[in-house]
Amino acid sequence: MSNPHINDTHNPSMKSWVESANDPATDFPIQNLALCAFVAEHDGHTHGHLGVAIGDQVLDVSMLAMSGALGDPEGDMAYMLHSPAWNFVAATPHVWGDLRARLQEFLREDAAGGQRMRRLREKALTPIAATKFMLPMTIFDYTDFYASKHHATNVGSMFRPDNPLLPNYRHVPIGYHGRASSLVVSGTPVRRPLGQQSPPDGEPGAGPAFGPCKLLDYEMELGVYIGAGNRLGEPIPISRAAECLFGMGILNDWSARDVQKWEYQPLGPFLAKNFASSLSPFVITMDALAPFRTAGPEREAGDPQPLPYLRGSGDWALDITVEVHLLSEQMRRRGMSPVRLSRGSFRDMYWTVDQLLAHHASNGCNMQPGDLLGSGTISGRAPDSRGCLLELTWQGNGPDGKPLPRKAVELPTGETRTFLADGDEVIMKAYCEREGFRRIGFGECRGVVMPAPVLA
Amino acid sequence: MSNPHINDTHNPSMKSWVESANDPATDFPIQNLALCAFVAEHDGHTHGHLGVAIGDQVLDVSMLAMSGALGDPEGDMAYMLHSPAWNFVAATPHVWGDLRARLQEFLREDAAGGQRMRRLREKALTPIAATKFMLPMTIFDYTDFYASKHHATNVGSMFRPDNPLLPNYRHVPIGYHGRASSLVVSGTPVRRPLGQQSPPDGEPGAGPAFGPCKLLDYEMELGVYIGAGNRLGEPIPISRAAECLFGMGILNDWSARDVQKWEYQPLGPFLAKNFASSLSPFVITMDALAPFRTAGPEREAGDPQPLPYLRGSGDWALDITVEVHLLSEQMRRRGMSPVRLSRGSFRDMYWTVDQLLAHHASNGCNMQPGDLLGSGTISGRAPDSRGCLLELTWQGNGPDGKPLPRKAVELPTGETRTFLADGDEVIMKAYCEREGFRRIGFGECRGVVMPAPVLA
Repeated sequence: MSNPHINDTHNPSMKSWVESANDPATDFPIQNLALCAFVAEHDGHTHGHLGVAIGDQVLDVSMLAMSGALGDPEGDMAYMLHSPAWNFVAATPHVWGDLRARLQEFLREDAAGGQRMRRLREKALTPIAATKFMLPMTIFDYTDFYASKHHATNVGSMFRPDNPLLPNYRHVPIGYHGRASSLVVSGTPVRRPLGQQSPPDGEPGAGPAFGPCKLLDYEMELGVYIGAGNRLGEPIPISRAAECLFGMGILNDWSARDVQKWEYQPLGPFLAKNFASSLSPFVITMDALAPFRTAGPEREAGDPQPLPYLRGSGDWALDITVEVHLLSEQMRRRGMSPVRLSRGSFRDMYWTVDQLLAHHASNGCNMQPGDLLGSGTISGRAPDSRGCLLELTWQGNGPDGKPLPRKAVELPTGETRTFLADGDEVIMKAYCEREGFRRIGFGECRGVVMPAPVLA
Repeated sequence: MSNPHINDTHNPSMKSWVESANDPATDFPIQNLALCAFVAEHDGHTHGHLGVAIGDQVLDVSMLAMSGALGDPEGDMAYMLHSPAWNFVAATPHVWGDLRARLQEFLREDAAGGQRMRRLREKALTPIAATKFMLPMTIFDYTDFYASKHHATNVGSMFRPDNPLLPNYRHVPIGYHGRASSLVVSGTPVRRPLGQQSPPDGEPGAGPAFGPCKLLDYEMELGVYIGAGNRLGEPIPISRAAECLFGMGILNDWSARDVQKWEYQPLGPFLAKNFASSLSPFVITMDALAPFRTAGPEREAGDPQPLPYLRGSGDWALDITVEVHLLSEQMRRRGMSPVRLSRGSFRDMYWTVDQLLAHHASNGCNMQPGDLLGSGTISGRAPDSRGCLLELTWQGNGPDGKPLPRKAVELPTGETRTFLADGDEVIMKAYCEREGFRRIGFGECRGVVMPAPVLA
């Protein structure tokens, strides 16, 4: 089937004068143009600037726009510079379409040269490794979904063995509101939270305890950023959902499992989640992801047809590979590489991102540009595709004799993990690969676990 | 016991040159100084301005600050004008303390006169009835709690008859994140949402329906606005919670009960709540509420001592009366007055606002100035103190033969309501009264129910 979203900007033979962007293994070829925001210094002051990843470099888009190299400095491009976040561009598809073309024009191997351009090219590039990133969007509201049926079934089996998948799951894209203030950019250390934990089993009369979380976990998710939103009271029909989505990033929904278990009834997870959620620095636009659209999500026997307001068609799922890696403090001290804990695919989700948005807005809830929808933990059928330690180790109760689930994850140092230890760094990656197209990567989402604060 | 928070600004004999502020029945005497934001017109353009309610008028604080009448126009006061919201003032207690004194100085009956002052006084007042209000704060994150044990027990009895109050309730201030984008100011019409409703009972194989909510309800809540916040990872100890709270307002947490029942497991309410939540236009500052502090919340036999991080003392509860009134379309057409449905008191809450904040930040979650914490529905022991229709009518299953709960609420037109009908206006009020002090009112939070959008 021909994909109407694929166009000249995806042409795999296009190359850039930034050499590292032509490496087949890079996350950021000229076909990607992943958006970011970062701290720039000039005149002895720091400023928030907008950037685009290209190979192993960040191109300073704000500097380019100020120099006039992107054209139209008085109009939309100038407006874009008012805030060091991509919200305005996300909200105005024609501005982004225009900018994507202009950036490719500027970055192409055969771009117009001249002395001024050469100077600009040198000034406007900084290595990704030397860049201090900020969140790429101002996120006013953040919603987290639960869109993997495999994840929901696994977690349900542990918390409610007799009733793993609740009756609403196959009909309702289950979601809940997250905390926007504690969204942090990749690289920000994450403190182990304090929290209430259930009274010990079998000790009648004992009360709950308050102290450092003992069961700290990660959740491998992808987030999707809203582009143009809707007005309060006006639902977004499923047929228009795709055009309201701007781009995606990696989301680590850190989870305090012991806190969650005790607090979540009846209003859902709260302090178990809102101590921090980490986001990768880059927005991978839906335009860049167009070649990786794929047929809608699989349905098993017993899965109902979605209600009409959630019914879509065509290549509306996304084939994105996700990986979780771990680096313990001991591994880091010994100069070892991170070890991969899991690899899954976003195509295994039960609900598509279009469905998540159409459901969210079906009651008239208004979406604003830059708002973030988390997918929920991405787990597939294969045990090694499970996107959190809770599922990988089955709460430390994994049956023996099977490769997975297992009681604990083994690290190359001989250490084991049922849940995260202080000093552990969780590294999440995501990327798309398809014959005939350049690889499109998401970069990384990293976070080191710091010890809990001392109880006053 | 002498209350250290009561000072000269609460002196009941202080009067204003704004005559209506001296009426004993007004919500807004000079001792209140309730903060608001509104649309001001000058030079043919509209601007967001900050204001203070005084009697039946709004004083244009932005105009006053620009004119220099509040002093220090180059410093904090000028900064305050950069945004038509009170966040900056909330975040800086010394600025607010200073401003409260200056505003009282300007508004006092015996304030300095002179021709310039007289002109300013005239120009700076607009009747509340003619004012177009905006939200008084930029609310980045909104959290809703569930702090009335009476409400939690009533609702629990309906949804889980064998297990009304869950084991965590008496230990954990249960809360969940709400949607900030759909917070609207009093007076904004609220559209009945579309949503999924459970499959009909007793029809095996039937699926859920999607359509207009059939069980639309209000929830009478108070919200508390954060002043100075905390940094991510740094809990707020209970001893410092009070100083981090800036003020309060009325919150109507509209609820689609049929949607809620079907969607809320396992991650909590979502589309049942986020179609709209209404806020009163005024922030009643904690300073204005100081005389109405009262001894901590009652505990019944079986209620445990809170964990140390939630343990406070002294007059840390608040005695605030809350009322819900209803005006149906038919009543409005016939020129009738709204009918009161309930009257309760905030002092009946199980958790204090200090506890809500200390709990929220106990895991290091960062609070930002202007963030809103909803109390949850305010219900007391008395049946006529229940703050939502679900409880007042017991889902339409109220037993006969008792005054309350009852199957439906009766209106003076002979109409009855189990849940809200299109055209109904819900009017919420709150106020504090105490011998020896001026009455401090919250104003009103109003909203008319509009018909659901037509299904595409």
